[in-house]
Amino acid sequence: MKLAKVPIVQVCAYQIALLQDSLQKLAGMNDQPPTYGQPVPAPCLYELTQEEMQQLAPPERSIVLMDEHVFQHFPTKWSGYRILLVPPGEQNKTFCTLELLSEQLLALGANRQSLLVAVGGGVVTDLVGYLAASFMRGVACAFVPTTVLAQVDAALGGKNGINVGLHKNMLGTIRQPEFIAINREYLATLPDLEWANGFAEIIKYGWIDDVAILEILESSNLPYFQKNLSEFSLLSARCTSIKNRIVAADEFENGERKKLNFGHTVGHALETLYRLPHGHAVSLGMRAALRLSEIHEGLDPSADRRLAIMLQQYQLPTSLELDELQVLDLLMHDKKRNGTNIDFILLERAGKAVIRQLSREEIRMGLSTIQAT
Amino acid sequence: MKLAKVPIVQVCAYQIALLQDSLQKLAGMNDQPPTYGQPVPAPCLYELTQEEMQQLAPPERSIVLMDEHVFQHFPTKWSGYRILLVPPGEQNKTFCTLELLSEQLLALGANRQSLLVAVGGGVVTDLVGYLAASFMRGVACAFVPTTVLAQVDAALGGKNGINVGLHKNMLGTIRQPEFIAINREYLATLPDLEWANGFAEIIKYGWIDDVAILEILESSNLPYFQKNLSEFSLLSARCTSIKNRIVAADEFENGERKKLNFGHTVGHALETLYRLPHGHAVSLGMRAALRLSEIHEGLDPSADRRLAIMLQQYQLPTSLELDELQVLDLLMHDKKRNGTNIDFILLERAGKAVIRQLSREEIRMGLSTIQAT
Repeated sequence: MKLAKVPIVQVCAYQIALLQDSLQKLAGMNDQPPTYGQPVPAPCLYELTQEEMQQLAPPERSIVLMDEHVFQHFPTKWSGYRILLVPPGEQNKTFCTLELLSEQLLALGANRQSLLVAVGGGVVTDLVGYLAASFMRGVACAFVPTTVLAQVDAALGGKNGINVGLHKNMLGTIRQPEFIAINREYLATLPDLEWANGFAEIIKYGWIDDVAILEILESSNLPYFQKNLSEFSLLSARCTSIKNRIVAADEFENGERKKLNFGHTVGHALETLYRLPHGHAVSLGMRAALRLSEIHEGLDPSADRRLAIMLQQYQLPTSLELDELQVLDLLMHDKKRNGTNIDFILLERAGKAVIRQLSREEIRMGLSTIQAT
Repeated sequence: MKLAKVPIVQVCAYQIALLQDSLQKLAGMNDQPPTYGQPVPAPCLYELTQEEMQQLAPPERSIVLMDEHVFQHFPTKWSGYRILLVPPGEQNKTFCTLELLSEQLLALGANRQSLLVAVGGGVVTDLVGYLAASFMRGVACAFVPTTVLAQVDAALGGKNGINVGLHKNMLGTIRQPEFIAINREYLATLPDLEWANGFAEIIKYGWIDDVAILEILESSNLPYFQKNLSEFSLLSARCTSIKNRIVAADEFENGERKKLNFGHTVGHALETLYRLPHGHAVSLGMRAALRLSEIHEGLDPSADRRLAIMLQQYQLPTSLELDELQVLDLLMHDKKRNGTNIDFILLERAGKAVIRQLSREEIRMGLSTIQAT
């Protein structure tokens, strides 16, 4: 393991300072409805005890919105709180769920001073984030991500949203939660597929920003991290600090933040069309982007082999039987469209992403790499 | 007419300065998606020519979302623009309409650089405001209010939203448009009912902030303003400057802005339960609030007679056959709820509003005043 050799964020001191900050901040907003002026990035708090959580999110003003699966695994963890169950899965990230939840919030007596606590994966934090941005024109929220994917990526950065028809996250906002509480205990019951799913984003951070992550990943494998949660926490904190740095510099995605979409432009289209898990779709999207980086940025062709091996090592797919024209059609409706071209993230080299505009025909070249033969 | 005696906003110089400001601002944001950092209040521009409008909202990046009724009256006014028709009426202020419009925006090629221009009454500006706040996580919008109500109130201040079930504006945001273009030509085809509807809000500004407005209103009547649109513009500009001043001081309604809800707490419940026009409901709500002001603030009882005469003068109702318990039940779910009490706007005197917390039973006392016998 190369982990010890790599300088990482000093998690403990960092988290205590942030915790105190947050406590003060939350105490100060007793009677004030929240606004859009939340700090960026929202504080990430690691391994909070349930007692600390109750200080930050007092049961009398908090309502917990919890993924049904998580509730089955941790039925008593949030006792003392009012709990709403959120139906799991991407297919429920719709306005229908939002409407249902807002009716239920009213029935539970929610008001403008309420704090909505989202406990679940990216679907739940996306839904609750948008709900909190909209409910009574904005109430406070906090996220407790329970999957690898949500802990290293989806719960961070303030993007939220729902799907409209085939269009992922077509309606949503960018708005930071009050804080994000990251506890590794939730990972203990996570299925292997969900672990792999999250590692796609960890691999992404390596390629766009931090080759040390690639080296850490290459020297280990998925079962190792599943068994050694404290080692995983170090890797995870490394990823969150990258994301937080980028989001702080460019909250509304005018430039730098676009780099976090590496693998996601093709990925989102594949995810929607073939109902792939997000991480599987992003893995394929990264392969397509690497091929396009070879063509347009002169990326060393050995990179593709390096990525393919890594994907296999973390139980992620490297190819798919796909209909290129259908994928391109959906992709051209992506939010990242800019006239007839699409903002596309390419690599100059491992650890160095660049933003380029590619046309439909140029993107098509990347798709052939991942076409299963 | 007392209008000439009252100092009013110097509309011309004001609007030209703002127009130039806006032009520069919009020109500068060519490639940048809009954020939540819009200026407060958004500039109000009076009597823009269609040519000036095209400079501010270039047809190539703008999509006009227009009330169907307005389109029938002004079918060629927005020629050269891509136009989407919005179904009219409060019953269409739902997520269903929002979803439909977002699909249509995609079909028209909208992207993050698009500017959504809402042309219509408060329903359209509320819908399009929320759509713009959410579509692709936020695009720019501008409002062209076409009713008295929207020109003096609904289009100003950045509040937007949709109804969920019986709950008015349950989901929405507070977010300013790029600018608001107020043109009196749209009022020429407005039905009498809609004129009266808007005057309820004008009466409100008088009672909460500016007794001169009450004097202007008492010395005239509805047909006078319908025939003398330039006189109406002066009155309207007086109202918008009050609203803009209050919104600028308290965009997110932590205090001062709540005063604009005078008559609206009871009003919203009546509007929903009895499907009243907004202005009719607010008129009744103001009468109830005046009665409660007598009880709690020692308001001179002659005020109620003064308000009742004024409502009749402007073709607004003074009583209604209502089910008090049903009204109270709905009202206690209002966004303005604060524990078991509700933030309620009362008057110390004409022109001076105060925020108080009232209980269900206290509010009930106000309802008997407007009960039709």
